[in-house]
Order: sequence, then C-alpha cells, then structure tokens
Amino acid sequence: MEKVLHYLAQNEPRFIRELSEYLRFPSVSAQAKHAGDIAACARWLADHSRALGLEAQVHQTKGNPIVTIRTPRAKGKRKPHFVVYGHYDVQPPEPFDLWKTPPFEPRIEGRSIYARGSTDNKGQHFAHLKAVEAYIKTGTELPCDLTFVIEGEEEIGCESLPPFLRKHRAALRCDAVVVSDTGMPDKQHPALTYALRGIAAMELKLHGPSRDLHSGIYGGSLDNPAMALCQLLAKLRDKNGRVAVSGFYAGVKSLSAFERKQLARLPYNAAQYRKFLGVPQLFGERGCTAVEQRSARPTVEINGLTSGYQGPGSKTIVPSWASAKLTFRLVPGQDPKKILRLVARHLRKICPPTVRLEISEGHGGEPYLVSPTGPQAQAALRALKAAFGREPVIMREGGSIPIVNEFRKILGADTLLLGLALPDDNLHSPNEKFDLDNFAAGSRMSAHLWQELAKRD
Amino acid sequence: MEKVLHYLAQNEPRFIRELSEYLRFPSVSAQAKHAGDIAACARWLADHSRALGLEAQVHQTKGNPIVTIRTPRAKGKRKPHFVVYGHYDVQPPEPFDLWKTPPFEPRIEGRSIYARGSTDNKGQHFAHLKAVEAYIKTGTELPCDLTFVIEGEEEIGCESLPPFLRKHRAALRCDAVVVSDTGMPDKQHPALTYALRGIAAMELKLHGPSRDLHSGIYGGSLDNPAMALCQLLAKLRDKNGRVAVSGFYAGVKSLSAFERKQLARLPYNAAQYRKFLGVPQLFGERGCTAVEQRSARPTVEINGLTSGYQGPGSKTIVPSWASAKLTFRLVPGQDPKKILRLVARHLRKICPPTVRLEISEGHGGEPYLVSPTGPQAQAALRALKAAFGREPVIMREGGSIPIVNEFRKILGADTLLLGLALPDDNLHSPNEKFDLDNFAAGSRMSAHLWQELAKRD
Repeated sequence: MEKVLHYLAQNEPRFIRELSEYLRFPSVSAQAKHAGDIAACARWLADHSRALGLEAQVHQTKGNPIVTIRTPRAKGKRKPHFVVYGHYDVQPPEPFDLWKTPPFEPRIEGRSIYARGSTDNKGQHFAHLKAVEAYIKTGTELPCDLTFVIEGEEEIGCESLPPFLRKHRAALRCDAVVVSDTGMPDKQHPALTYALRGIAAMELKLHGPSRDLHSGIYGGSLDNPAMALCQLLAKLRDKNGRVAVSGFYAGVKSLSAFERKQLARLPYNAAQYRKFLGVPQLFGERGCTAVEQRSARPTVEINGLTSGYQGPGSKTIVPSWASAKLTFRLVPGQDPKKILRLVARHLRKICPPTVRLEISEGHGGEPYLVSPTGPQAQAALRALKAAFGREPVIMREGGSIPIVNEFRKILGADTLLLGLALPDDNLHSPNEKFDLDNFAAGSRMSAHLWQELAKRD
Repeated sequence: MEKVLHYLAQNEPRFIRELSEYLRFPSVSAQAKHAGDIAACARWLADHSRALGLEAQVHQTKGNPIVTIRTPRAKGKRKPHFVVYGHYDVQPPEPFDLWKTPPFEPRIEGRSIYARGSTDNKGQHFAHLKAVEAYIKTGTELPCDLTFVIEGEEEIGCESLPPFLRKHRAALRCDAVVVSDTGMPDKQHPALTYALRGIAAMELKLHGPSRDLHSGIYGGSLDNPAMALCQLLAKLRDKNGRVAVSGFYAGVKSLSAFERKQLARLPYNAAQYRKFLGVPQLFGERGCTAVEQRSARPTVEINGLTSGYQGPGSKTIVPSWASAKLTFRLVPGQDPKKILRLVARHLRKICPPTVRLEISEGHGGEPYLVSPTGPQAQAALRALKAAFGREPVIMREGGSIPIVNEFRKILGADTLLLGLALPDDNLHSPNEKFDLDNFAAGSRMSAHLWQELAKRD
C-alpha cells in the first residue's frame, strides 16, 4: 500500500493536468448542440483508461454513451467485485456572465480547480480512476475486481442506465456499488452518506371561470382560483411544519438514538446557517434539528406558483386558473406512488366545489437507506479515516439519487455513498469548483477502500 | 320633440355610416404607434361636429387631445348646463386572430356593428351627438346648454383630464355630467347606474432565501416563501366570503330595503349566470345575492401569483421569493388609502418572521354613489322609459370609473350614468360590438333627457 500512496502523492500534478483535460469537454447532456462533445468526452475517458492498461468500452445507448472500465481480472481467482458509478455529463453552464473564467477552461486558484463538472462529477470519479492507476503502475495487486460505469445522462434523468444495467446484469453483479457524488459537511469531516430522501412531484391546477374576468364587473360573485389555490395549499403544512395530509407519516420511522447522536456530530451553527441561506429566521418541523429537518424528515415544498397577471402594474382580473408545482421529499418508509395517491385524495377532499381541480402526477424517486453500522459501511469509514486522517461522520442527505434504488433492484447491491463535494463547491451553479485536497484524499480513500472491503469478504 | 324623434328615425342609416367612419380610426391610446391615429380621430370628431353647426375645439394636453363640443348658446338666456363625457380612445385590439373581421373595419351583422371601440365608447357618445344634431337640424330649441368633453386617455388612466377640468372649471361648471359608458343588464332593461365600486391595488412580495435553493439539500430547514404567501393570502378571505381584515367593513352601509328591492328587479338566473362565467359553482359573500355581491359589496381579489419555476416539468427548488397582485373593490363608505393602510398593517401583523414582507401600494379609486331617487335621477329614468318603451331599472356597477369622482370634486357635479352596453358586447375583448337598437334608443334617450332635465330646473 505504501507504494500506491507514494505513487498518488508523486503524480498529483499530472493527475490535475489530466483532470483539466477531462474538464475541457463541454459535455452538457441537456443541450443537443453538445452531442458531439458528449461523444468526444466518453471516447477520451475510454482512451485514457486503456492507456493505463484497463479494458474500456464505450457502449452506445438510445441516449448518450455509457463508458465501462474494467480492471484486469486474475484468471481462476475469485475476488470481490465492486462497481464504481459516476457520470461524465455536466449541468448546463449558464448564466455565463456569472462565471469568473469560462466554465470549460479549468482554472486553478489556491487548492481549488474551477470548471463546470469539476465536482459534479468528473473530479470525483477521476479520483477513483487514479487510485486504480496507482495499483497498476506500481504493480500492486488489487484485492478486488472493479468495474467503472460512467454514464452520460445523470443530469437529465439517467434514462439509459437501467436498461443497460439489466442488459449487463451478469457482468455487473457485484458486492456493492461505490459512488462519490454526494457531499461532506466540511473539509474536517469526511463522510459516509447512508440515507437519501426520495421525491414525489405533482402539479395542480385550479380552474375557475372559462376566461379571465373583469374583477370589477364580476368580482365577488364567483370564487377566485388563485385564492382557492392559496387556501388549498395553506392547508398542506401545519404550524408545526408538518405535512398535514392524513397518512403521510405512516411508515416513517423515528430516528434512533444512535442516529440522532451521529447527526448531532455534524458541524452546524444556526447563525451561520441562517446567514448562508439568507433567510430572516429558520423554520422547520418542530422537535427536529435543522440537520434532521433537511435530511431525515419528509417535507412539502411549493416549487412554483402561477396565476393571472404577472407583468408590471396591475390588471384587474379574476384569473381563469391558478397552478402550483409541488414536490414532497420522502424518507425511508414512504413510497412515492402511495404518497402521491394520498395527497391527491386529500386535495380532492378539501378542494371547494367552486373550482375544478386538475392534478398531474410527476416523477417519483424512492428514498434510500443502508445500515450505517454494517461491515461494508465500517470498511468505508476505515478508508475515509485513513485517507483524511480524521474521524469520519455518517450522515443522511436530503437530496435524491434515484439510481441507487436501481442498483439495489437490478444488481442486488447496496451503494456506498462517499462524497467529496464541499458545501461551497457551487454544484449546478456558476463557478463550480473541486477541492484539490479532496481530489488527493479521494484517491487515497479509494486505494484504502478496496483493501478494507476485501478484508471483510 | 316629434320632429326630433322623426329626424332620428329617418336618418338612422346615415348615422350608422358616420359611426362606421368614426370607428375606422385605430385610436389605441395604449400603443405609441397609434399617436397619429389618435390625433386624426380627434380632428375627425371636431370637424364632424362643426359640420353640424356646433362649436368644436381640439385641446392639446400633455397626453392625447381632448375634444370639446358646445351647443350654440342663446344670448342672455340662462339654461341649465350639462357636460356629456365620453372617450374616443379604444382598448388595444389584440389578439387579432380572435377577431372574425378586422377590428377597425366595422362590420354590420343583424342589429350589431362589430368594431373595436363600438360600444366602448365611440358608439355611446356618438348617440348623444346625433340627438343634438336632430335638435339643430329640425330647428328645435335645446332646453339645455351642452358641452361634450370627449377625451383620448380613458383606457390608460385619464391623466390629462383632471388638469383640463381644473383649467376650464368655469366653462365646464354644470348641473350634472352625463356619461354613457356603463351597461344595462339586457335589452329589455334600460338602466340608470347610481353607484360604482372603488378600487385599491397592492402588490406583496415575500422574500425567503437569498437565492433559489435545492429543495432536497435544504428543504425542510427553512420556510418556503410560496407556502408562506399562500398561508398569508388564505387568511384574507373567510369561509363566508368576507374580507378578513380588521376594520375593513367599518363605514360600509348595508343596502337599504329599497335598494335591495330594486337590485332584485334586475334580470338574473343563477344557472345561466354560472354557465356564462363558466364556473363549476358560484361563490360569494354569504347573505347577499350575486347581483349585490358583484356590485354593492367589497371584495378582495388575487389578480396574479408568481413564484419559483413556471416552465414545463419540475424544478426542485425552494424559491427565493413569492409575490401576489391584489385588488380590493370598495363600496361607498370605504376610502382606498385607508383600506390599503389597514390591509398592510394586517399583513405585517400576521406575516411570519421566517420571511420578509415587502408591500407596494398601487393605484386607488374612490367608490361613487348618487341618490337614485333625486330629481335628476328621476328625470333620467323618465327619459330612459320614453326612449326604450320599457320600465328602467336602477343598478350599481361593480367596476370603477374614477373620473366621476373628479367631476364631483372639480366641477361640483354629480354624474348620471346611462349606459348602453350589453353584457355580450365584448368590451375590451375581441369582436367588440354595439347594438344598433341601443344606438338608436340611446339617441332618443338623449333627446328626451334634455327635456326632462330642463323640466325640473
């Protein structure tokens, strides 16, 4: 292992140059004009891996190509097998004018590399690839077989991945999937994420009069759909910050004393957090800490409201309709489909007869939970500690990564979420960056991880 | 009078041709490109009036010209003086594709003339002008002195009119103002409108986090401004359809038994009205009829709602802000400024500390009320009955005509609202039309009106 770690340390400047090269591809999956860049980026990754002595393939799909990279398999020897998942596609860089330097011209400032895709996700899976390189180039035997699955549609919904996983199910059967695409609370706290929230999206529209009506001539003699919408939505959250839909919390388990204690270890300062969000005062479900509220408790959020006149000045109408976009963040024990049914039933029940309610169910993603105390989690925590030199934390994340449920369903494998992103890395925002200390520590963590995971097998 | 009425009947086809000529001007005050048409339209009206033997002037203002037309004054003889108010500017015709024929190419179909401005308001004041023509051309002495004030900014807020009224206060001092710019419930019910609602506009914005936040990562640990807005607005109207702001109804007088009885005479069929509005069920202040709700009771209306993401699909954010446009329709006894103060105070009181409330007060217009039983009203009702051959009704209108309060303040005169518009005349909408029977009856009504008003003087 010393040789591996030494190699990683020695070659860090070159790794950064190579990562820069990778980051130059504007592999924006949401924008059709970048189809060529997507293809070129996937080819580059495969070529780069082959040059390291790895077996790489670019698989065409109905959407963007998926790159697989396999470590050399020792004949007749059964090693544990792990899939490393990542994505080479990136978020759109717009608005360009908010970037200090162009998003696809990587810039190094201090210990950060600025570029679209640096943290999300090129830098993070590239750290794993460099760990593998270190094993190969130092002639150190990898204690595990690894298959990287690096896709190109993560930012637009991962549509091609599940069919790909099903098609290659045999080759991809594994002991666990390792994903570095989540975050850590700060540089001092390397983290294993053991739970993710799910999501259920819904759009509702209240139809009132058949056209916008003059509010002077008719106002007062019919319901106002915008008012009806407000009164309907107002009833979805009670004053304690809980979702006021009957049955919504059925199945939600309270956090164990162990979990609450672990979550309480996460760095948190209310005043700083309030300032960071930019809100006059924090608010959340009564009886829960902010960390719990945002990662371990379900919520309802209004993502958008639309009704009537939105231009300057006033327009004196009773609007014909009013609509809202809602998402519910869900926690383990809640099923998105069932939640959407419950909410729709509830809304239909409380909707007044003076407007017509139209509900469109949107996408859903199941919540995710693995044991934070199981042997794989323990192995991961040891790897984190060895790589970062600090006691790792275990945490839940409030966001959703629907693909981890597909890994469980199709490959039968749990996912170890070992994220390297920092809260100020500007994921999905202008001036995205990746911390170069985390890049280096990420490679060390990966090198240790295969050892630790092999131990317990 | 017989000669006058005979002349009106004989010359009706020509009147319609002349009205068509008047309607050909696209005198759209809201659109700068029509400035030339505005000027040409004002000139046409003055020239047309001069050709009838009237004294007409086009007065330049800071905005669009105001046309005055005076009947010849008899020397040394004091007659009662009335101002006839109207406007030659029209609403924008857009969307063009919904017009069956071009908005400025008048088309006659059955007993209707279709064109932008036909009812609102060219046709209505032209009816009065044709009555004056009948007096002049038949050599019949007008029992009153008349001054027409036809302005060109009614559809954009009448800004130039009050300074004009103040400047010409002496010449315009009068016994009453006559305005045909309101409606009648149907062709069988000629109407005198004796009250108008006032209006108070307000915009509010709730500020939450300093930028849109990822609803997965942060959702649950801060208030959602769209939800806070809904909960705030929901509290503005109670389940009985009353505005739930303390002090809002102070000063509002209940309708007298006489008024309720008169309003109950107006034609109304709940099923037809519901169908006309296109709503699943009617709604309004409990204890009031629909006619009362929409004309004689104050209301709160949400005219627009805006927050977060409004495009297709979903965007999982906690929006940074949420805003609403509100208008309150007011009734006699309520002051717009005071109402805005009350509402702002109320909102500040109930707004949660988790968001920051920003209130922008908008325009206000006072409610209007004249006695429906006074001698001028009685004279107007007799004129309506004589012209239409039917028993007229007295009514309140729910809309606001702020200028009538200026007439009272500046000229010291009440306004007689003798509208000729029918509910299906499509005012402000595509395919605006004017009923030609009402055009003819309007001229007869005008001819009778000066006789009836002179009687009581």
